[in-house]
Amino acid sequence: MATPSGTPIRTAHSVSFETPASEQAGLHNRWHPDIPFASAITPGETVKIECLDWTGGQIKNDDSADDVKNIDLTRVHYLSGPFEIKGAEPGDVLQVEIQDVQPFDHRPWGFCAIFDKKNGGGFLDEEYPQAAKAIWDFSGIFTSSRHVPGVKFAGLIHPGIMGCAPSTELLAEWTRRETELVDTCEHAAHRDVALLPEPRSVHAGVAAKTPGLLEKIGKEGARTIPGRPEHGGNCDIKNLSRGSKTFLPVHINGAGFSVGDLHFSQGDGEISFCGAIEMAGVITIKFDLIKGGMEKLGMKSPIYIPGPVEPQFGPGRMLTFEGFSVDDAGKQHFLDVNVAYKQNCKRVIEYLQRFGYSGEQIYLLLSCAPIQGHIAGIVDIPNACTTIGLPMDIFDFDISPAGILKNGLPKLDLGSCAYTSDRK
Amino acid sequence: MATPSGTPIRTAHSVSFETPASEQAGLHNRWHPDIPFASAITPGETVKIECLDWTGGQIKNDDSADDVKNIDLTRVHYLSGPFEIKGAEPGDVLQVEIQDVQPFDHRPWGFCAIFDKKNGGGFLDEEYPQAAKAIWDFSGIFTSSRHVPGVKFAGLIHPGIMGCAPSTELLAEWTRRETELVDTCEHAAHRDVALLPEPRSVHAGVAAKTPGLLEKIGKEGARTIPGRPEHGGNCDIKNLSRGSKTFLPVHINGAGFSVGDLHFSQGDGEISFCGAIEMAGVITIKFDLIKGGMEKLGMKSPIYIPGPVEPQFGPGRMLTFEGFSVDDAGKQHFLDVNVAYKQNCKRVIEYLQRFGYSGEQIYLLLSCAPIQGHIAGIVDIPNACTTIGLPMDIFDFDISPAGILKNGLPKLDLGSCAYTSDRK
Amino acid sequence: MATPSGTPIRTAHSVSFETPASEQAGLHNRWHPDIPFASAITPGETVKIECLDWTGGQIKNDDSADDVKNIDLTRVHYLSGPFEIKGAEPGDVLQVEIQDVQPFDHRPWGFCAIFDKKNGGGFLDEEYPQAAKAIWDFSGIFTSSRHVPGVKFAGLIHPGIMGCAPSTELLAEWTRRETELVDTCEHAAHRDVALLPEPRSVHAGVAAKTPGLLEKIGKEGARTIPGRPEHGGNCDIKNLSRGSKTFLPVHINGAGFSVGDLHFSQGDGEISFCGAIEMAGVITIKFDLIKGGMEKLGMKSPIYIPGPVEPQFGPGRMLTFEGFSVDDAGKQHFLDVNVAYKQNCKRVIEYLQRFGYSGEQIYLLLSCAPIQGHIAGIVDIPNACTTIGLPMDIFDFDISPAGILKNGLPKLDLGSCAYTSDRK
Amino acid sequence: MATPSGTPIRTAHSVSFETPASEQAGLHNRWHPDIPFASAITPGETVKIECLDWTGGQIKNDDSADDVKNIDLTRVHYLSGPFEIKGAEPGDVLQVEIQDVQPFDHRPWGFCAIFDKKNGGGFLDEEYPQAAKAIWDFSGIFTSSRHVPGVKFAGLIHPGIMGCAPSTELLAEWTRRETELVDTCEHAAHRDVALLPEPRSVHAGVAAKTPGLLEKIGKEGARTIPGRPEHGGNCDIKNLSRGSKTFLPVHINGAGFSVGDLHFSQGDGEISFCGAIEMAGVITIKFDLIKGGMEKLGMKSPIYIPGPVEPQFGPGRMLTFEGFSVDDAGKQHFLDVNVAYKQNCKRVIEYLQRFGYSGEQIYLLLSCAPIQGHIAGIVDIPNACTTIGLPMDIFDFDISPAGILKNGLPKLDLGSCAYTSDRK
Repeated sequence: MATPSGTPIRTAHSVSFETPASEQAGLHNRWHPDIPFASAITPGETVKIECLDWTGGQIKNDDSADDVKNIDLTRVHYLSGPFEIKGAEPGDVLQVEIQDVQPFDHRPWGFCAIFDKKNGGGFLDEEYPQAAKAIWDFSGIFTSSRHVPGVKFAGLIHPGIMGCAPSTELLAEWTRRETELVDTCEHAAHRDVALLPEPRSVHAGVAAKTPGLLEKIGKEGARTIPGRPEHGGNCDIKNLSRGSKTFLPVHINGAGFSVGDLHFSQGDGEISFCGAIEMAGVITIKFDLIKGGMEKLGMKSPIYIPGPVEPQFGPGRMLTFEGFSVDDAGKQHFLDVNVAYKQNCKRVIEYLQRFGYSGEQIYLLLSCAPIQGHIAGIVDIPNACTTIGLPMDIFDFDISPAGILKNGLPKLDLGSCAYTSDRK
Repeated sequence: MATPSGTPIRTAHSVSFETPASEQAGLHNRWHPDIPFASAITPGETVKIECLDWTGGQIKNDDSADDVKNIDLTRVHYLSGPFEIKGAEPGDVLQVEIQDVQPFDHRPWGFCAIFDKKNGGGFLDEEYPQAAKAIWDFSGIFTSSRHVPGVKFAGLIHPGIMGCAPSTELLAEWTRRETELVDTCEHAAHRDVALLPEPRSVHAGVAAKTPGLLEKIGKEGARTIPGRPEHGGNCDIKNLSRGSKTFLPVHINGAGFSVGDLHFSQGDGEISFCGAIEMAGVITIKFDLIKGGMEKLGMKSPIYIPGPVEPQFGPGRMLTFEGFSVDDAGKQHFLDVNVAYKQNCKRVIEYLQRFGYSGEQIYLLLSCAPIQGHIAGIVDIPNACTTIGLPMDIFDFDISPAGILKNGLPKLDLGSCAYTSDRK
Repeated sequence: MATPSGTPIRTAHSVSFETPASEQAGLHNRWHPDIPFASAITPGETVKIECLDWTGGQIKNDDSADDVKNIDLTRVHYLSGPFEIKGAEPGDVLQVEIQDVQPFDHRPWGFCAIFDKKNGGGFLDEEYPQAAKAIWDFSGIFTSSRHVPGVKFAGLIHPGIMGCAPSTELLAEWTRRETELVDTCEHAAHRDVALLPEPRSVHAGVAAKTPGLLEKIGKEGARTIPGRPEHGGNCDIKNLSRGSKTFLPVHINGAGFSVGDLHFSQGDGEISFCGAIEMAGVITIKFDLIKGGMEKLGMKSPIYIPGPVEPQFGPGRMLTFEGFSVDDAGKQHFLDVNVAYKQNCKRVIEYLQRFGYSGEQIYLLLSCAPIQGHIAGIVDIPNACTTIGLPMDIFDFDISPAGILKNGLPKLDLGSCAYTSDRK
Repeated sequence: MATPSGTPIRTAHSVSFETPASEQAGLHNRWHPDIPFASAITPGETVKIECLDWTGGQIKNDDSADDVKNIDLTRVHYLSGPFEIKGAEPGDVLQVEIQDVQPFDHRPWGFCAIFDKKNGGGFLDEEYPQAAKAIWDFSGIFTSSRHVPGVKFAGLIHPGIMGCAPSTELLAEWTRRETELVDTCEHAAHRDVALLPEPRSVHAGVAAKTPGLLEKIGKEGARTIPGRPEHGGNCDIKNLSRGSKTFLPVHINGAGFSVGDLHFSQGDGEISFCGAIEMAGVITIKFDLIKGGMEKLGMKSPIYIPGPVEPQFGPGRMLTFEGFSVDDAGKQHFLDVNVAYKQNCKRVIEYLQRFGYSGEQIYLLLSCAPIQGHIAGIVDIPNACTTIGLPMDIFDFDISPAGILKNGLPKLDLGSCAYTSDRK
C-alpha cells in the first residue's frame, strides 16, 4: 500500500503542544502488550509520525537548569504509538526504513542536559553531580548553541527509541531480571540500578477509559529506560538515522510499534544521559513485514543497516583519544570498558578545557556531537582500551595539536552553559 | 634530518629469521627503563624498523592449532627497540607518523588464533575454550584464508604496540596497581587477571652482557600485555594505520621507543586475544619531537589522528548488530559494556553460522576483519548497548537480510579452521 | 542578525500554486540589474526561500510527455528574488551557506525529462530526439519512479541556479559574446547554440508596474540558460547541496541574489538537459557578506566547499565506465571531452539496457541519479578519457559484472517511461 | 593457480636499471599483435610485474628541467609485457585485480613535468610553454617535493597504462582514424594532433631477433599515446589503484597484456601531460579470464570497480572551483568542456599563486595531486561547467577562504620548481 504518486505522505499520528502530554491519546510512557493501539498501519505503507520530546515538554528554552534538576522521571519517555501493523504476528520481523526525521519548523530547537546526581545522574555524575543544560538551535541540517559556543555541526538525526510491544511473557521476564538486579547489585545501595514498574505518572493513550487497564499497565508496564535485547527499544544508537533500515522482532499480534525520543544529534554513549539533542519532531517511516522473519533471519535482537548520508569528515580529521581501565585514583580495573570509556571522556574534557570551555560544556558536547566511541581492545588483561574520535571540523577554531603548537592556545570567550539557580 | 632525495629510507633495525628471537639484539619482551638502546634516531628522521611477529615465530603456517595451544606466553611480545630518540626528555612528546606498514615479501602470511582457556584465553573463552587457528595469506593490500573461506578484505594494517619506555617511578606504579588487582580481584581465583613481572624467558637485547641487568629487568620489567594509559603500549587500536600520527608521552631521557606486534588487520576489540592477523614485517615511521609536549598539549595518555586511507565501505554496506548487557542465562548486568559486547559477538556468530561457518571461524573472523565496535549507549540503566558493524562486502556471497529473504540461505562448503590434534 | 533562539526561521519569499508564475511578484525569468528587489535580507541572517519548479508548473504528474514536447522555453527559469542583501556593493562576495533544501510536503514529487530535439534538445538528442518523461516520488531523503522502476536513491538535493544580478556592463558583455557565438558558430545553422535576449514571456516581479521597465528587461535581460563564469547562475552543480558554502561575486549595489531550479537529485552533466529531478520546494540559506571579498579571495568565478552529508557508497560500490573521444562512426576527435562523455553515456546505456530498460529510461536515470562524471585524462592526444561512476547500490537488483557472471541477466519487467501521444 | 600459502608471489617480469630500456627483453613501446610474449601467466594466478618509468629513465633526480625539454618522445612508453594469458581468445575479458602498486625501495622518488610546447606540450602549453620539473620523494604512502614545498599527500597509486594487444584489424582501424584526424584536423597545422606509427626508437622485446619483425612493428605499431576505447591502454585513470578490478577486452589469442607508466599519484586530467608523479615500481596483479566476457558483459570499452582504500578527505574539506567555457579573451565557446576545464585550472592557479607559488608549481601540483575534476553541467547552452575539487588537507598551511579572511595571506617562501638552464 504505497502512497499514490503526487499525494502527501499521510500523518499517522499528530501531537499537540497545547494539551499536556499526559492527556494525549496516541502517547504512552510504558511498554505493555495491553496498551490500546493508537491506529493501524499497513505493511508497505510510508507514514509520518509526530513525536513530542521525551520529557513531554518539561524542559524550556531558557538559561536556567532548574527544570532539569527538578524533572519528573516517572513521566518519561512519551512515545508515539503503539501502532498496529496489520497482519503482524509473533515471530515476524518488522522492517523499519527511516525515510526522514525532522524537527518541527515551528520549534527549531532542542536541549541536552546533565541531570542532578540525585535525579537521573549520568556517566560522569561523580565528577559533575549538579544539573546543567544547553539549548541547541537548528538551522536546516546544522545546529549550534549559545551555551556551547564555537561549535556547529550537521545532525545525525535519529530516534532514540523504536520497538515493538513485549508479550506478557517477555514483560514478565524483563521485570524478573531487573528486579533481581535491584535485589542483588552491589551498587543498589547508593544509586538506582534499574527502574522497576512505577504506577505514578503512567500514561497509556486511551487506556484510562477502560476500567482497571491503566492501573494494570502502571503496575506491570516496563519502563522506557533502558533498551532491551529482545525488542531494541531505548537503544540510543546514533546511526539509526535517515535511510537506515532496522529489523525489529514482533512479539504480539499487531506488533504494537512505538517510536519517540527523537535526537537531532548524539555522540556514541550519550554519556550525560539526557545527552543527545532532544527534540520534538516528525519521523517518516516505511514499514514492511517479514513473515516468520525471526527464524528466517536467525535474529534474537534487532539488526540494522545504516543509511547512506551520515556526515563524513574523513578519518584524517578525527582527533582521537585513548582511554584505559585505570581510574583517576590509580586503581587498576579488570577489562572494565566503562572505566576505560570514562577515562577517555576525561581526557577529552581536559584537552578541550584548555581552550576556555567549562567541564560541563564539554560533557554536554561529548554527549551530543557525533563523536565516535570505539571498543579498541578488550583482551589485553587487565586493561580495556577505548577510543573517542572527535571531528575537528565541528569547531570554528583549530583544536588540532598542530594548531596548538603553531599558534599556542587561543584566548576565547566561550561563555557558559545553563546552570541551576542554587548552584554551589 | 630528512632522508636525502632519491636515497632509500634507512633501516634502523633488521630482524633475522635464522637466529632465535630470544638471542637477537634489538629485540626485547619487557618494558623497563634500563633496557639498552638498540640504536639512535634523530628527530625529523624517517626510518624503517623490522619486526618479528609478536610470538617470535612460535606459530607455524600449517593446519594444526597445537602450536597455539602450547604457546609460551612468558616470551611475548618481541618488540623492536628500544630506540634512543636524540634529545628526548621526560615531558616531551614523541610524534610518530606511520608512513607505511608492510609484511615481508618473503613471508606473505599471518595468523590469528583462539587461545586455550587455560593458556591465554580470550573474550569468548567460556564458549570457545579450545585452541584454534587460521592462516591468512597476503596478496598486496588483500588477505584471505583457507581456514575461513568466503571472505577477502583489504587490511587496515597497523602495529599493535608502540610506546616509550617507562621511568623507574612509572614502572613501580604499574607493578603496584596490577599487583593490587591480582590480590583483590574477584576473578583472580579462577583466571589470570593481570600478568605480573616474570623472570622466565625475559629478553632485553644486549642486556645479558651486563652483569645482573637481565635479572633486574626480568624481576621488575612490566609485561607487554596490556596497554597502559601513561604510554600507550599494547593498545591494539586498528586505526593506528598508514598515515596516522600518534603523540606519545616521553618518560625517560632518550625516550626508548619500541614497536612491534604488527597486525595485517584487526577488528575492534581484537576479541580472540591473538585475534588480529599477526605478522612479521616492516614499519616505516617519521619521528618528530615536541619539546615539553605533554604540558603544551595537556596530555596524560596518547592521542592520535588516523590516516586518510582507511578502507571505506559506505555506511549502507555495514550490517550492524545490537548487543545489550543481559547474558545468555537471562541475568541482567548493570551497564556492563563487556557483557553487552560479548552478547553482540554472539549475535553475529549466530547469524553467520547459518551460512555454514563454525563458531570458531566467525570468532576468528570478528577478531581480524575490520569490524566496527561502538559503545552506542551507556547511560540507560541497567543496559549498556553496543553495536558491531560488519562490512558486507568482505564476503564473496550475499550475507544481507535482503539476500536471505530473496534467495534463502546458500548451501556453502566453508571448510574448517585449524584445530588441535587432541580436540574433543 | 541571527534568528532568536526558539523562533522559526523567517520565510523571505513564498510562492503560490494558485496564481500563475508569470503573475507572481518575487519571481523573475531573466537576469537584469533593474529587476526590482523582491525583499531585503540582512547579512548574518538565515531565511527560507520558496521556489517554484523551473518551468513554473508546465510539467504534470502524469504518464504523457506531451507537456514536455510542447514546453514553452521562453518562460524559463522562474527564479525567486532578486533579494537585496543589505550593504552589498560591487566587489563584495556573498557567502551562501545552504542549511537545507526540501520539497514541499504537499508536493512530494518531481520530474526529469528528455526534450524534443526541436524544442530544447539535450546531450544525446541525436540518439533520442523525441520527448520523454519520468515522474519521481519523494519519500523523505529517497526517491523512486514508476517510470524507471528498480532504482531508489537518496537525493543530493540542491539548487540548479544561484547567483547575484549582473551589472549593466556585465550584462552587455554577456550579450556581446553570446551574440558573437550565434553569428559565428558552425553549429548555429542547425541548432540553437545560445539563447539571446527574448522579450516574449519575460517576467520580472513587479517590473510591469513601472512604465517601460519590463520591456527594457525583456530586450536586454540575459536568459537564465546557461551559467556564466562571472556570477555562477545556472551552473547545475550537484554538490551545491545541504551544508555547502558558496562564495558568489557581487556586481550591483544590494547584490540582487536569486535562486531557483531546485533539484532533488542530479548526475554530473545533467545530460538530458531537464535531467535533474526538477521540483518546487524550499531552500534555507544563511547569508554573510564579505566586504571586498573578490580582491581578498582573488576570485573571478564562484568557489564553494561542499557539505558534509553527501550520500556515500564507498568507492568499491561504483561500477565505472570509460569513454574516449572516438565516435560511433569511428571518427577520431581531437581531445574532445564532449565526444568522450557522450561515448561514456552510451556505454552505460548499452550495459543497463540488457537488464530490460529502454534507452530513454537510462538516459533519464543518468541525468538524475548521483553518478560521478570525471575528466580522467585530457592530454594523451588525440583521445580525451572520461569516466562515469555508477553507484550499484541504487538498484534493487545486482548489476555488477560478478552478478551477471554468476546468475546471468535477470528477466525483469522494467516498465516504461512516459512518451508523447504521437510517438513514432 | 593460486600461489601456495606462505610462499612469495612470483615475479613475472624484472627490469634492470643497468641495461638501457631499449635493450631489455620484456619491454616494448608500441602496441602490435606480433610483439613476442614476454612470458606466460595462468588465469587465477597473482604475479608481480616490475616496470620502468614511462620514459625508460630519461628524467633525472636533479634541479634542472633540461632533460624534460630534450626528452625523446619517440621512445615512450616502455611497457612491461606483453604477457600471454593462457587460454585467452578474442572476445574474452581479462579481469585484472590490482593487489598493490609500489615504488622500488631503492628508488623512492618520482617526477612530474611540464613539457616544452614544441616537444610534447600539455593542457596549458599556451600559458606555460617552457619546460619545468618537480621531483617527488616517497615516504611510505606519502609524497612531498622540494620543488613544490608546503604540500604532502597520500598517493592514489596506479598504472597509467594497462591493456591487451590489438588484433591486426583493430590496429589498422586505429591507424586509419588517427591518420584521418591528422589529415583533416584544423589544429594539425600548428601542433601534433595525433602520433602516427613511428619506426624510430621502436622497441619490442626480443622482436629484433626475428628478421623483419621489428621493422614491421615500427611501421605498423600503434603509439602508446593515447588510450583507445577498444582496449583502454593509456587511459590515465587515477582510480585504477590498489584494489581496483578492471575488465579488459581481449583481441588476440593469448591476450598480450601489457602494463606500465606507473603513477604514484595523479589529478583528474593529468593536465601537464607528464603530470602524474611518474615512477618505476612493481605492480601486483591477480588475473582471471572470463571466457566470452565481451558478449556476457555487453562491453565495448573497459569497465572497472575502484578499490576500497582511496584517500578520503571528507567532502567538507574540498575547496572547489567552477570553470565555464568562456575563454580569457572573453570568447564564448559552445559547450566546450576543454575550454571550461582550462578556465577551471586557471582559477585554481590564480587562487594559489597568492600564497607564493609560481604558476608552474601549481600547474605541476594540479597534475599530480588527487584533485577531483568533474563535468558538472554539459547541457546549458552555450556554457559547459566543470569543477575542480582541491583537498585542503594536502597543504601544511590553511588555504581556505575562512583562513584568508581570518589571518590574511601568509608570507611563505615556497621556493621554485626546476627550470631549464636557458629559460627566458
